[in-house]
Amino acid sequence: MNVAEIILKKRDGYALSAAETTFLIEGFTNDRIPDYQMSAFCMAVFHRGMTHEETVCLTNAMRHSGSVLDLSFLPGAKLDKHSTGGVGDKTSLIVAPLVAAAGAYVPMISGRGLGFSGGTLDKLESIPGFSVQLSLERFRAVLEKVGCAMIGQTQEIAPADRKLYALRDVTATVESIPLICASIMSKKLAEGLDGLVLDVKTGSGAFMPTLEQASELARSLVDTGNRLGTRTVALITDMHQPLGKAVGNSLEVQEAIDTLKGSGPQDLTLLSEKLSARMLSLSRGPAEASQARARVAGALRSGKALEKFAAMIAAQGGDPRIVEQPALLPRAARQEAIRSPSNGFVTKLDARAIGRASMGLGAGRETVDSAIDPSVGIVLHKKISDAVEKGEPLCTVFCNQPSRFEQVREALSAAFVVAADSVEPPPLVKSLVE
Amino acid sequence: MNVAEIILKKRDGYALSAAETTFLIEGFTNDRIPDYQMSAFCMAVFHRGMTHEETVCLTNAMRHSGSVLDLSFLPGAKLDKHSTGGVGDKTSLIVAPLVAAAGAYVPMISGRGLGFSGGTLDKLESIPGFSVQLSLERFRAVLEKVGCAMIGQTQEIAPADRKLYALRDVTATVESIPLICASIMSKKLAEGLDGLVLDVKTGSGAFMPTLEQASELARSLVDTGNRLGTRTVALITDMHQPLGKAVGNSLEVQEAIDTLKGSGPQDLTLLSEKLSARMLSLSRGPAEASQARARVAGALRSGKALEKFAAMIAAQGGDPRIVEQPALLPRAARQEAIRSPSNGFVTKLDARAIGRASMGLGAGRETVDSAIDPSVGIVLHKKISDAVEKGEPLCTVFCNQPSRFEQVREALSAAFVVAADSVEPPPLVKSLVE
Repeated sequence: MNVAEIILKKRDGYALSAAETTFLIEGFTNDRIPDYQMSAFCMAVFHRGMTHEETVCLTNAMRHSGSVLDLSFLPGAKLDKHSTGGVGDKTSLIVAPLVAAAGAYVPMISGRGLGFSGGTLDKLESIPGFSVQLSLERFRAVLEKVGCAMIGQTQEIAPADRKLYALRDVTATVESIPLICASIMSKKLAEGLDGLVLDVKTGSGAFMPTLEQASELARSLVDTGNRLGTRTVALITDMHQPLGKAVGNSLEVQEAIDTLKGSGPQDLTLLSEKLSARMLSLSRGPAEASQARARVAGALRSGKALEKFAAMIAAQGGDPRIVEQPALLPRAARQEAIRSPSNGFVTKLDARAIGRASMGLGAGRETVDSAIDPSVGIVLHKKISDAVEKGEPLCTVFCNQPSRFEQVREALSAAFVVAADSVEPPPLVKSLVE
Repeated sequence: MNVAEIILKKRDGYALSAAETTFLIEGFTNDRIPDYQMSAFCMAVFHRGMTHEETVCLTNAMRHSGSVLDLSFLPGAKLDKHSTGGVGDKTSLIVAPLVAAAGAYVPMISGRGLGFSGGTLDKLESIPGFSVQLSLERFRAVLEKVGCAMIGQTQEIAPADRKLYALRDVTATVESIPLICASIMSKKLAEGLDGLVLDVKTGSGAFMPTLEQASELARSLVDTGNRLGTRTVALITDMHQPLGKAVGNSLEVQEAIDTLKGSGPQDLTLLSEKLSARMLSLSRGPAEASQARARVAGALRSGKALEKFAAMIAAQGGDPRIVEQPALLPRAARQEAIRSPSNGFVTKLDARAIGRASMGLGAGRETVDSAIDPSVGIVLHKKISDAVEKGEPLCTVFCNQPSRFEQVREALSAAFVVAADSVEPPPLVKSLVE
């Protein structure tokens, strides 16, 4: 097979065969196909798209570029959840121990934040001592002992994806649904799962801002998962405003703990429960849906989910006392309020602007090499539809350098729109794709 | 400036600024911008195109990536011709000495053949001793002494194009009008010309098969040339059937000599004269058109053009006796005829099929590393509209290995369609773009 001819075929809008796709991915993984051909291919895919069949083949080839976990030694359902990323989205920290407490296994391999969107690994690393870099052997051991484990991508899992993502990031080929789908699903389907729930975000703080794009991505993800043998569903959920109230790494860990204690924000609690119940239902069947919801509610109420979280922290080298002693988490030196300019109602709260401001404070990365300050971030006091009085704080900024606060103050204020007439809050769950 | 953002801008269909285009080309030429970003950029250009303004900027940046010749020491007009490539197109070998004989200078930097299309350098190299690799100093000296010189691209001329073309060739990004335009014009406009005539081919044996594509390319080339200060016009000419009768390197040199002697095929003679007259008119003005035609006819009839060709051969190390002694050119060992299967008229003669057959005999390259056999090729005895009798030769194949003839015999026969009713030959010159 000739690489240039495969690129040409895609460039001109034809579908590639499974053999061609596999040839590309194997060659790229083994450094036989150079970056310059792969980046041209990705740009052709960006413009021409891929059929479902091609996307499935691409995902499968990328999944098999490395190890595919066999977790059959675990005596229960292996379930995972993946979010396409948003602002204030810390559901992974809640869902993993919650589903483990309800009796299933959650082998979660997560990513870091880039740009305005936070990353689960960065949040976990704000817990003193917590390690996200376990060997696969240690990962299995934690999983067996605790029921859940959360690590970063390893060298063994889908190496084609790691290499391809780095290339896409610098060649303006990230925003392609088949490539996004293959990137997400190649890693998740290498985890040896029985079921996978996807949380596809839509709104200003999501990578797919429009509902149409989010639906297309969700359809692609769900079809690919099911075609490759893992029961997969997706919820399309709101990301016009941040999820919950905390944005920033240790602030989000704290909010996850509050939620596991039953005192978290309503939207975050509700979505975490819904995602967890969907995961449990996948391993049993739709008739069990109401039972799954009851098990999730029970695991939360009983404190077992919180226990699992503490146990996982301990098993991954972190300090489990943080769940009872918030002061052990990194804490920013300064707090500054952004106040409402008028009486009225919050009618808009731009998730992307909040995410960018949080990044500006040091909670996120401009580039993959940027260092993160785990202590900084934003806590929202008002969300869409909330009444507010003039001078009342809209949010509190946690920072260590006053200059960084000054840099984001204006954009943060502009992220809130306060108007005389109230609006309905955006619906949290838009739809289910199965 | 950020390369990924420039790629993104083009990917999404926006026009780049002159500064952005220059930044890309300079960075790529200096190896600061890696191939993988440039190939993604080229694929984005393939899908999104470029405005005339962008194409002009790209061409100019590529022209200035290396030396731009200053030929102002020559006391006459500096004129050149460039063909987009076809089968049997040896007009450069005729036009250069013809225009020189008519009193202008022709500093021609040409290319090699690739695929089904022949290259001027390969044809010239079939002349014993002829060197196409002169230093720019030697090029200037030959030009001053003879009036014309023909060489290959040097390290100094448009290095960005050489690097970019190699990348495009392996990333399926060749067939993009702005990229083709910039590639052609960056080299030609580095020659220090007063005027340039482009011969844009259309038909099966051309890189731009349809008249619409050829017209678009011609418009882009002409606008770019004129915008960058070189008077430029284009003729769109036929390449449904080969030009002239000879296809193959030494066979084409022989036909060029015949044409310079006044005994060449009618179509080749006519097109060579038209192109030459256009070149001369560019340096003087439209009122001089009839005078230009007269000067061209005179240079041909007087034998001065043939003398110039012999002088150029001598000046570039070749054996000038070939113009009188055809036996000094490489000659294939065997001749085989392809005969007409029926009485009738040739209604189709597929230039691309003839080109491919010639390549199959060894006259062209499958890849840039292939060796060429200068002696092999095809001489057509019948062209479109010619009457033919059953068993009469349609063409003669010149080859050294019977096996190679057998490999192309069937395809060559199929290149001719002989039918009962005659057709008109396709018009040679379709239109003028100025």
